[in-house]
Amino acid sequence: MKEIPAPSKKRLVLLAQILSQRTKEKITSVEIQRLAGWSEATVRRDISLLELHNGVSNGYDVKVLRDAILARFNMEENVQNEHRCCIVGLGKLGEALLESSFFEKSNFKIVAGFDSSQNRIELLRSRIPLHSTNNLESFVRMENIEYAVLSVDDAKAQLMADKLVAAGIKGIVNYTNTVLSVPDSVKIENVNPVLVMRTFLA
Amino acid sequence: MKEIPAPSKKRLVLLAQILSQRTKEKITSVEIQRLAGWSEATVRRDISLLELHNGVSNGYDVKVLRDAILARFNMEENVQNEHRCCIVGLGKLGEALLESSFFEKSNFKIVAGFDSSQNRIELLRSRIPLHSTNNLESFVRMENIEYAVLSVDDAKAQLMADKLVAAGIKGIVNYTNTVLSVPDSVKIENVNPVLVMRTFLA
Repeated sequence: MKEIPAPSKKRLVLLAQILSQRTKEKITSVEIQRLAGWSEATVRRDISLLELHNGVSNGYDVKVLRDAILARFNMEENVQNEHRCCIVGLGKLGEALLESSFFEKSNFKIVAGFDSSQNRIELLRSRIPLHSTNNLESFVRMENIEYAVLSVDDAKAQLMADKLVAAGIKGIVNYTNTVLSVPDSVKIENVNPVLVMRTFLA
Repeated sequence: MKEIPAPSKKRLVLLAQILSQRTKEKITSVEIQRLAGWSEATVRRDISLLELHNGVSNGYDVKVLRDAILARFNMEENVQNEHRCCIVGLGKLGEALLESSFFEKSNFKIVAGFDSSQNRIELLRSRIPLHSTNNLESFVRMENIEYAVLSVDDAKAQLMADKLVAAGIKGIVNYTNTVLSVPDSVKIENVNPVLVMRTFLA
């Protein structure tokens, strides 16, 4: 299989999400264009990268297409594909993410939360085990945590990222304002609302 | 001035953030490579797109470079460049974002919060005016709101996006799991942690 370029990967992952919202059996590239905003040509090119060998005369089969994307990117929602995650920084935002339903129906499972304040850890009530960031590196390693949400104060963000990297983390969803320095092998997405809005201006 | 391609724009906006974290006067492309993880060649190419006409023998001048990026993308933090924003959906996450310090030192100003529940609006205490989503379209228009954070339930996401688009919104930071259908002219960034983690797998 050929390597799929990053922008196409991102669109295909979003397309899988669109397909899971879909109730009809078939979907055409024109409908995808309307739903997602990508041009029909882009949609067709992205889908062609999946190398499906079925006719598309009256649209793509929603289930076949979705399954193909899930399979291609190891996104199938089964126990073998469960990915263990943690939240680092349990201020208001970290707490909200810890309690959010985002992770419920996904194969990403939050298995730990971390904060530097022992008071904060004792104050929060959660079904998810909470620990001190002093033990971040050893816990992440021991618990085989693959992905982290980073929602600490900006000033501590690089230090915590360093600990996560040292523990072998594969990716960080960065809610802080700090642009992080990590090795190439670690994936980063900056999702701080202000940073995102700045890219809207650009 | 030539149009700057989207990936370069995004990196330059992050570079401006890196530069604002910098205490030294000069920065080299090698240092930027180490801090941001982009290759030195990418860094130099991105910066060349700004068409600065100063020597870079011993590195870029941090202030000059940062100011050039801010100027190019209308990101200067002054009153003329203030961008009015709102948060739609005041559950735990919306509340956390409303109270977060993210927006404080930026030129993005949260001027309103919206929720469909009158009880929720009355319960929340905030310096920021809170309104019913029934009035979303008229308020966004009247208040000249340019950007929105969307943190409603997945099932209501498209409906609220439609209202925002009808009111002339320029961009939406989408924290929901729903992939939104909006016109090309409206910028969208999907920052839901699970969607982001899925793109890590891909």
